[in-house]
Amino acid sequence: MIKAGIIGATGYTGGELLKILASHPNAQVVRAASRSNAGKQVSNVHKYLYKALDLEECAIDSANFRDCDVVFLALPHGASSQMAKELVGMGVKVIDLGADFRLRSIDSYNEWYGAEHKWPEVLPETVYGLPEIYRERIKDADLVANPGCYPTSIILGLMPLIKNDLVDVHTIVADSKSGVSGAGKTPAANTHYPDMNEGISAYKIAGTHRHTAEIEQELGLLAQEEMYITFTPHLTPMNRGILSSITVTAKKELTQDIIDQCYYEAYKDEYFIRLRSLADLPNTKWVAGSNFCDIAAVWDKRTKRVNVISAIDNLVKGASGQAVQNMNIMFGLEENAGLKFGFVYP
Amino acid sequence: MIKAGIIGATGYTGGELLKILASHPNAQVVRAASRSNAGKQVSNVHKYLYKALDLEECAIDSANFRDCDVVFLALPHGASSQMAKELVGMGVKVIDLGADFRLRSIDSYNEWYGAEHKWPEVLPETVYGLPEIYRERIKDADLVANPGCYPTSIILGLMPLIKNDLVDVHTIVADSKSGVSGAGKTPAANTHYPDMNEGISAYKIAGTHRHTAEIEQELGLLAQEEMYITFTPHLTPMNRGILSSITVTAKKELTQDIIDQCYYEAYKDEYFIRLRSLADLPNTKWVAGSNFCDIAAVWDKRTKRVNVISAIDNLVKGASGQAVQNMNIMFGLEENAGLKFGFVYP
Amino acid sequence: MIKAGIIGATGYTGGELLKILASHPNAQVVRAASRSNAGKQVSNVHKYLYKALDLEECAIDSANFRDCDVVFLALPHGASSQMAKELVGMGVKVIDLGADFRLRSIDSYNEWYGAEHKWPEVLPETVYGLPEIYRERIKDADLVANPGCYPTSIILGLMPLIKNDLVDVHTIVADSKSGVSGAGKTPAANTHYPDMNEGISAYKIAGTHRHTAEIEQELGLLAQEEMYITFTPHLTPMNRGILSSITVTAKKELTQDIIDQCYYEAYKDEYFIRLRSLADLPNTKWVAGSNFCDIAAVWDKRTKRVNVISAIDNLVKGASGQAVQNMNIMFGLEENAGLKFGFVYP
Amino acid sequence: MIKAGIIGATGYTGGELLKILASHPNAQVVRAASRSNAGKQVSNVHKYLYKALDLEECAIDSANFRDCDVVFLALPHGASSQMAKELVGMGVKVIDLGADFRLRSIDSYNEWYGAEHKWPEVLPETVYGLPEIYRERIKDADLVANPGCYPTSIILGLMPLIKNDLVDVHTIVADSKSGVSGAGKTPAANTHYPDMNEGISAYKIAGTHRHTAEIEQELGLLAQEEMYITFTPHLTPMNRGILSSITVTAKKELTQDIIDQCYYEAYKDEYFIRLRSLADLPNTKWVAGSNFCDIAAVWDKRTKRVNVISAIDNLVKGASGQAVQNMNIMFGLEENAGLKFGFVYP
Repeated sequence: MIKAGIIGATGYTGGELLKILASHPNAQVVRAASRSNAGKQVSNVHKYLYKALDLEECAIDSANFRDCDVVFLALPHGASSQMAKELVGMGVKVIDLGADFRLRSIDSYNEWYGAEHKWPEVLPETVYGLPEIYRERIKDADLVANPGCYPTSIILGLMPLIKNDLVDVHTIVADSKSGVSGAGKTPAANTHYPDMNEGISAYKIAGTHRHTAEIEQELGLLAQEEMYITFTPHLTPMNRGILSSITVTAKKELTQDIIDQCYYEAYKDEYFIRLRSLADLPNTKWVAGSNFCDIAAVWDKRTKRVNVISAIDNLVKGASGQAVQNMNIMFGLEENAGLKFGFVYP
Repeated sequence: MIKAGIIGATGYTGGELLKILASHPNAQVVRAASRSNAGKQVSNVHKYLYKALDLEECAIDSANFRDCDVVFLALPHGASSQMAKELVGMGVKVIDLGADFRLRSIDSYNEWYGAEHKWPEVLPETVYGLPEIYRERIKDADLVANPGCYPTSIILGLMPLIKNDLVDVHTIVADSKSGVSGAGKTPAANTHYPDMNEGISAYKIAGTHRHTAEIEQELGLLAQEEMYITFTPHLTPMNRGILSSITVTAKKELTQDIIDQCYYEAYKDEYFIRLRSLADLPNTKWVAGSNFCDIAAVWDKRTKRVNVISAIDNLVKGASGQAVQNMNIMFGLEENAGLKFGFVYP
Repeated sequence: MIKAGIIGATGYTGGELLKILASHPNAQVVRAASRSNAGKQVSNVHKYLYKALDLEECAIDSANFRDCDVVFLALPHGASSQMAKELVGMGVKVIDLGADFRLRSIDSYNEWYGAEHKWPEVLPETVYGLPEIYRERIKDADLVANPGCYPTSIILGLMPLIKNDLVDVHTIVADSKSGVSGAGKTPAANTHYPDMNEGISAYKIAGTHRHTAEIEQELGLLAQEEMYITFTPHLTPMNRGILSSITVTAKKELTQDIIDQCYYEAYKDEYFIRLRSLADLPNTKWVAGSNFCDIAAVWDKRTKRVNVISAIDNLVKGASGQAVQNMNIMFGLEENAGLKFGFVYP
Repeated sequence: MIKAGIIGATGYTGGELLKILASHPNAQVVRAASRSNAGKQVSNVHKYLYKALDLEECAIDSANFRDCDVVFLALPHGASSQMAKELVGMGVKVIDLGADFRLRSIDSYNEWYGAEHKWPEVLPETVYGLPEIYRERIKDADLVANPGCYPTSIILGLMPLIKNDLVDVHTIVADSKSGVSGAGKTPAANTHYPDMNEGISAYKIAGTHRHTAEIEQELGLLAQEEMYITFTPHLTPMNRGILSSITVTAKKELTQDIIDQCYYEAYKDEYFIRLRSLADLPNTKWVAGSNFCDIAAVWDKRTKRVNVISAIDNLVKGASGQAVQNMNIMFGLEENAGLKFGFVYP
């Protein structure tokens, strides 16, 4: 059994990690830490885990995790870099669910996050943990930067088109709708139930959301050119899920067959990608609780654009599930171990 | 008092008309008809109106509405054309909330709707009832085609940019999120509560939704050129509201000031348009129950695009409220009579 | 026009008062005050009122309200007593939406609220503003204690049975389900959207909720004997509404006819009470936005109990609407002035 | 591996069975049948199972299930009795999730269900599959009647009090709030999203809901006397969960300690029962997706009543999870095999 630790176990992603790993056939959480719940049972915070998971949290101190094989960091940005440095130094593998290692240059990190980074020299070589692109590098990584939720849905949605050079990457418009768990567990005025319920709104539009940088970096690497995208995130009155509706103009006349073939080839060996169609467009409910990413790419011959719809669960493929997928790869396990059946429907 | 009639009073838009007109200072509903509820009180269907509105429905027959000053048609497409012809022939003014008179050519109607049209010769001259564009023509109209819900939100969002020739209309991408009342009152598998709740999905994407034709027609008239747009509608787990997130590329370098000035000039005399900003992006909750359309247009200098967010209540400014606004104009009343305070928050 | 003031205008009840009074034919809000929004427009807090209501808030100081005919207090308990004393001293009528004047003895207030009361001597004579019971006294009152939301739904549901001595008041079990707006506007862990959505829970059960005292006081006065009731409040994942399901054992064998007659007689002249039946049980949606209270009382011959279901909108008949109803009575207006059509459906 | 079959695989309980059994360590679904989906993949109906579960449905014919070890029946009432008879006759164990075998007398079945029963002679000896009461009998049963969702939550909530003769069973009032999945998968007017969302209502009150009979039967067996209860079911705007708030009068003066001890003793060896307290009242969210039943029993010394709150997931402990728990017992497996971690939070 792989001995896993979680630092930052009180948030929604921490809870999801605890739940997924509790039923994992090859791993178990031996240690969990958080600032607010140290010395208490995880079920003190995660009421649903009462009786199901018996684990007392410890303080946030890398020394407590020395005997772990892998540690998941679910900390606010800025807090992971020092902790990751210490753990990797001890020989513990680290999967960071935060943003500290996603951007490959310290300049970009400084521009978008503005926090002090404690381990900038590792950035150029850190592995971005999107297995459908970087699986080979993840296998040998000591430190994996788990992708953001929005970037996961958008990059997976566009990757086949860009890799096959079918579209003009300077025309990308990505409209993403997130469930409210994506805003985290801290109560706030805009996520207070009566103020959030029955309303949808956009936020941080026009290139002001931090995930913009991450998406542009990764799509740019795929396209081998720099680009700016339009990324419009929304808070949607539901708990889980991200639906990204992406529009991009083709470089030449395409057909639905060409597009279908392109996606089929790109994803035919990917367990967690499910291809859908215009008749069966992705719905966040169909991936809720699971690590699947559902994608439909539809040709619009009127506009010469491809319309891509992708759906994930922001807490699973968008966070904790993908982190476990990365762990599975890093330790040579079946990639879907512990990730086969988390669905909740309806 | 204006004597109003409603044909098709059992749906959500019919109910909203009954409610709005019940508190209108200058109009009252004297007659309502529906297929399923003829001979019964409106509160038999609209339970909330019990004791508040005493009105027995009659059969759907234009003769029953001969003494009305105005009749609102809230019928499925294909059913309005004959009824409108008869009523206008009797000298009764008609406001059609359906789609039969929105498209200006019978070819376009046939292509998108495929129903037999009983009064095609009137199409070229029918008035499209979007007061912010066609107010002068509405004043004298006998027949007004009340706009669709999605088109209202998108056309109002883009009009200032297009009229001022600031944007390339061939780059429009409109992503719209609708509350489920927009799907109508008839139970269906995808709108069954457990299947709809907690999930968002797109439908009829890539130029397959009928409102595409209506949006392209009206934007084309504003731009004085034909265009194709990307229109991506979504069903969102909430009862009311449409949020449209629209992206369009500028023809030249703009600034936020230029955009602000453009929208200010276009809408400074429009009671029902409220301009918002990046710091205060529209939320469907803020317009729920009201006839307002909230709009924010934000410059993204990185992409040279304008990001427009517009919010309406699909049943009010997107249907019944706008219909009453049209009635007010047709009868020389204050344009916001009966439409000042319908808000529901939270 | 009656000149009304609101002290405590930033909460949900304050916003609802602003909205209702804005369309009232005989009253207008001339002044509003709050701690957090003094010096700013009400629409700074209530975004939906932008352009619809132009009113700058002032500081919370009774002197600012000297020229009002009536002032509504929507303050936390403990804060109203001093303010009410000052305003009534100036000759301004006061309707208090808080709890400071609902209990008729200072001992009871101390036991249940524990705050210092600044005007205890007025308690025995203060009028409890439930018009269906105390209309005559409200007419001449200078100070009205607007009832709590739960008590309104429960007292109105039981009143006919108790007044006619049909039931054993020592057997009352009241199970009430409230929308989350009843928990107020301040963000908290249990009302954070993802934690509240998709879950129902009871709170402050077994005689620990403060409204227990208010319900027992008023039912006790109706029954002319003291009693203890079981009152079980719940937070329900919806914005508005209270549904109370009340069970009480009959003193003797009854019939549905006897019960129907009892309720009919009690409420036949009450505009805001709508009687429903087993075939048409009350739904909070049917009263949402309105001042109606829907009630069904059903005989269960198996158990010899009456099952009463009552539904109100907690922010309207449960708070701001009832406050305006009280104002209407105090000033000799039509009792439903400004309160006829606030429905929102669906 | 136990070879399991499911007859009636298209509904919500059928889907939940497929999901639970797919990750069960000792069982697998080898056959599934339904009327509407015969000849097609289960994922044709249960979209979320695409790629995760490869299983083609067959026709509803007992012969197709001859080689199964156990068959789960998820059929409308009236349809199970014949099918169960045939399967048991073949030597296949049957767990019926419907109502055909829950009532122990054919008279009661006829009175409450009115359908023709094809195997009435087995009723007196059929095992009611509530493991916390009937575990020993379940071990050897060939046919288990899986309890209804409401009865599960109410019987488990009251059992310790009744077995210890602490309460007067003629005073039971049970108010239950169910998520909408409890109403099944067939679209209907009252469960159409816009009509259901944002509203709570009671239905089939005053002894008219069929589960009344089942609850009274089982509580009566525990108490060894007949009784009538008040059972008030509600539809709540959420997908999953039942919260039952139960009130019962004590036979004598109790204390919280006596009650705590009573529940502790009754449930100390029960994995799926979690005891909560007044400070930590059950919430349906904490059991969502899981087979746990959370219970708090609180003494109210004012009224001399015990207030019990119990929470389950109606599709898991209230249906498919409990069915698998029964299967585990019937086949000598760990009782929580395959049922440890289905939580979904938030």
